[in-house]
Amino acid sequence: MNEDISPNYKPFTPETIVDYIRQRPEMGDVFRPTEPLVAEEIGDGNLNLVFRIWAEADKERTVIVKQALPYLRLVGGDWPLPVDRARIEAEALKVEYKLVPQHTPRVYFYDPDMYLFAMQNLNRHIIMRKGLIEGIKYPRFAEHIGLFLARTLGGTSDLALDFKTKKLEVKRFINPDLCKITEDLIFTEPYRYTERNGFHKELEPQVLALQADEKLHVEVAKMKEKFMTQAQALVHGDLHTGSIMINQTETFVIDPEFAYYGPMGFDIGAVIGNLFLNYAAHEVRTPDPAKRADFRKYLTDTVIDLWHVFVREFQPFWDQADPINMPKGYQDDYMLRVLQDSAGLGACKMMRRVIGLAGVADIRGIQDVHERAIAGSLALHIGRSLLLEREQIHTIEDLVEIATACKPTYPWGKTTLS
Amino acid sequence: MNEDISPNYKPFTPETIVDYIRQRPEMGDVFRPTEPLVAEEIGDGNLNLVFRIWAEADKERTVIVKQALPYLRLVGGDWPLPVDRARIEAEALKVEYKLVPQHTPRVYFYDPDMYLFAMQNLNRHIIMRKGLIEGIKYPRFAEHIGLFLARTLGGTSDLALDFKTKKLEVKRFINPDLCKITEDLIFTEPYRYTERNGFHKELEPQVLALQADEKLHVEVAKMKEKFMTQAQALVHGDLHTGSIMINQTETFVIDPEFAYYGPMGFDIGAVIGNLFLNYAAHEVRTPDPAKRADFRKYLTDTVIDLWHVFVREFQPFWDQADPINMPKGYQDDYMLRVLQDSAGLGACKMMRRVIGLAGVADIRGIQDVHERAIAGSLALHIGRSLLLEREQIHTIEDLVEIATACKPTYPWGKTTLS
Repeated sequence: MNEDISPNYKPFTPETIVDYIRQRPEMGDVFRPTEPLVAEEIGDGNLNLVFRIWAEADKERTVIVKQALPYLRLVGGDWPLPVDRARIEAEALKVEYKLVPQHTPRVYFYDPDMYLFAMQNLNRHIIMRKGLIEGIKYPRFAEHIGLFLARTLGGTSDLALDFKTKKLEVKRFINPDLCKITEDLIFTEPYRYTERNGFHKELEPQVLALQADEKLHVEVAKMKEKFMTQAQALVHGDLHTGSIMINQTETFVIDPEFAYYGPMGFDIGAVIGNLFLNYAAHEVRTPDPAKRADFRKYLTDTVIDLWHVFVREFQPFWDQADPINMPKGYQDDYMLRVLQDSAGLGACKMMRRVIGLAGVADIRGIQDVHERAIAGSLALHIGRSLLLEREQIHTIEDLVEIATACKPTYPWGKTTLS
Repeated sequence: MNEDISPNYKPFTPETIVDYIRQRPEMGDVFRPTEPLVAEEIGDGNLNLVFRIWAEADKERTVIVKQALPYLRLVGGDWPLPVDRARIEAEALKVEYKLVPQHTPRVYFYDPDMYLFAMQNLNRHIIMRKGLIEGIKYPRFAEHIGLFLARTLGGTSDLALDFKTKKLEVKRFINPDLCKITEDLIFTEPYRYTERNGFHKELEPQVLALQADEKLHVEVAKMKEKFMTQAQALVHGDLHTGSIMINQTETFVIDPEFAYYGPMGFDIGAVIGNLFLNYAAHEVRTPDPAKRADFRKYLTDTVIDLWHVFVREFQPFWDQADPINMPKGYQDDYMLRVLQDSAGLGACKMMRRVIGLAGVADIRGIQDVHERAIAGSLALHIGRSLLLEREQIHTIEDLVEIATACKPTYPWGKTTLS
């Protein structure tokens, strides 16, 4: 799979990356040619090396360098991954930066021999998932992410690009291996027995019921087909709350290495699905009913608001559309399909985070197994309901109503292990 | 658009092509190195040069050479076209030959400098459209084309190809300029005023009504979006009855220069739509009611049979599908969507052949303007009904029933010009 790897490629270390970065002319705005730099490796360790580099004299002059490893570290050399994904990620960031610079880290350069790129260090932000787990509200997030989604999805679709650019962009972002990870981990493995699934014993009855539910399999298969065939827009492809760097005033979306031309609902659904995973986690993470209700209201208001912002910010694409080609009735139908796709695709992302290989800290980070099972059970119910009832969704409020009507069914009465 | 054209490229003439072809080692099976060859140019003259070449000593030893011209001859140099389409066509023929050699001309070689390829001369076959216009039945056609469609569409989809091959095939067949022709001529121009539309004055009231029908525009827009975004299978892209070479025992599909990854229904619909264009033409071409009914029964039986053959020959792809990934309920839904897509996309192909730039001889070849308007009126009604009622179609018999219930509404009573 990596037969075409550059002969010059070598993984860097904190020692070697400093010399390398000092020599790059593109870094002249940040570092002086001879000044001492410091680097540390801060990657979460499964796909890439990530270096934080700063000037010894001034910690605020800093960049991130991300270098692709030719394998998925999580499972060792067994799962080789193309280093080309560094190109995809750097190019996707550049596209996004052009469309929404206020929510995208700046890329300084991409090195096609080393499969790495340097980008803005978001050193005043934290990973959103961590904040949400702690119950921190981000009042500007809905506005920011709605704009990001509208600009990046609308702006890379046939609504904004001419026929040729769009098709050449589809070609440039063909991303087989990373799409395959999604196909397997999101749409395939959660719905069958595999050793890689990571759900906990306590959830087994509910997971086995889902795995035996042919009606559910039919809908998952439709979502998988959509993921595999609908070249609607350049999607980020992994837009969960762990790909968002945030604080009270700013929001940045990082890590688009899974970017490819896919359905818009895959990104919107990822955001909504991850907000509902957090919603489910607070079932046990926030025992105080009033506090819980308050934070959940923040989460569901955020879901509602981000959709309304998305629709508002998407409107310019419709305003410039030819009304004969795309009459109002078509525009409404298009937006409705994006909403229903978001529900269905986001639902699949929720369920896989409970059942499959890669969980989310919101739920898997809950120490007590019974509490973890309660939150997992609720997340699975929300996912299942959003997927099966997505065609009844006509407004974002419908979507929230379906999700918030769900309750955990763990413990299982007499069958429970507790 | 043709900035990358090879510096060695030159259009051949019947004189120069003979020397060229004699020197090609791949032709050793057909021609001897020094024997006299004869060539004539037989292109219909809008996109390509087409040479028929044969051994003077034996007319049966013969090939066709097809060379791309860098512009659309129909409108002169105003519409430049990428010569890369010769590569697309040659490569698509090779894919189809591998899957259904009995219905695909053999390609001997492709020359990337001259943008030409040599292929089997189907010298015992005629263009199907001509035969159908004359009222000739082809009893084996449904069986042949059903097989061709199932093998080429199923065999290039995610159902048959591994994740990587499929995505690299999508990339290899990105075909922006020829897709753009379809987007304009089939999905855009027929539904508005343009100078290029080619309908006759007599049809104007019905055409204007269609162009004012917003409900129709909505459905056309959905079909256009599907054409532009659904990378389901390698489609031929122009599978009308003029792309089919046929006789009583054999059927060959030629001319896949519009090939790209699109919706399966685009090819199936092209065949069905063109059979119904011919059906509409016989409203006036075959005045004898018994003869007309007989030939139309052949046409509608062919539509029904080709779908059933398609479904039967598609079944092996389902048989090898993982039943958890793709349960029966999903398979049924998939086939139903392909059927409804075929109705909707085929309908658009019908309407454009009456309204738009490029007509079909079945209808535009009718000498008498009033008779031509009757046939055109019927074709438009069939197209409109199939598009608007496609979601009520659950069987191929439903589709045929909708089409055969349509009647021409020309002459328009008092508003007629006759």
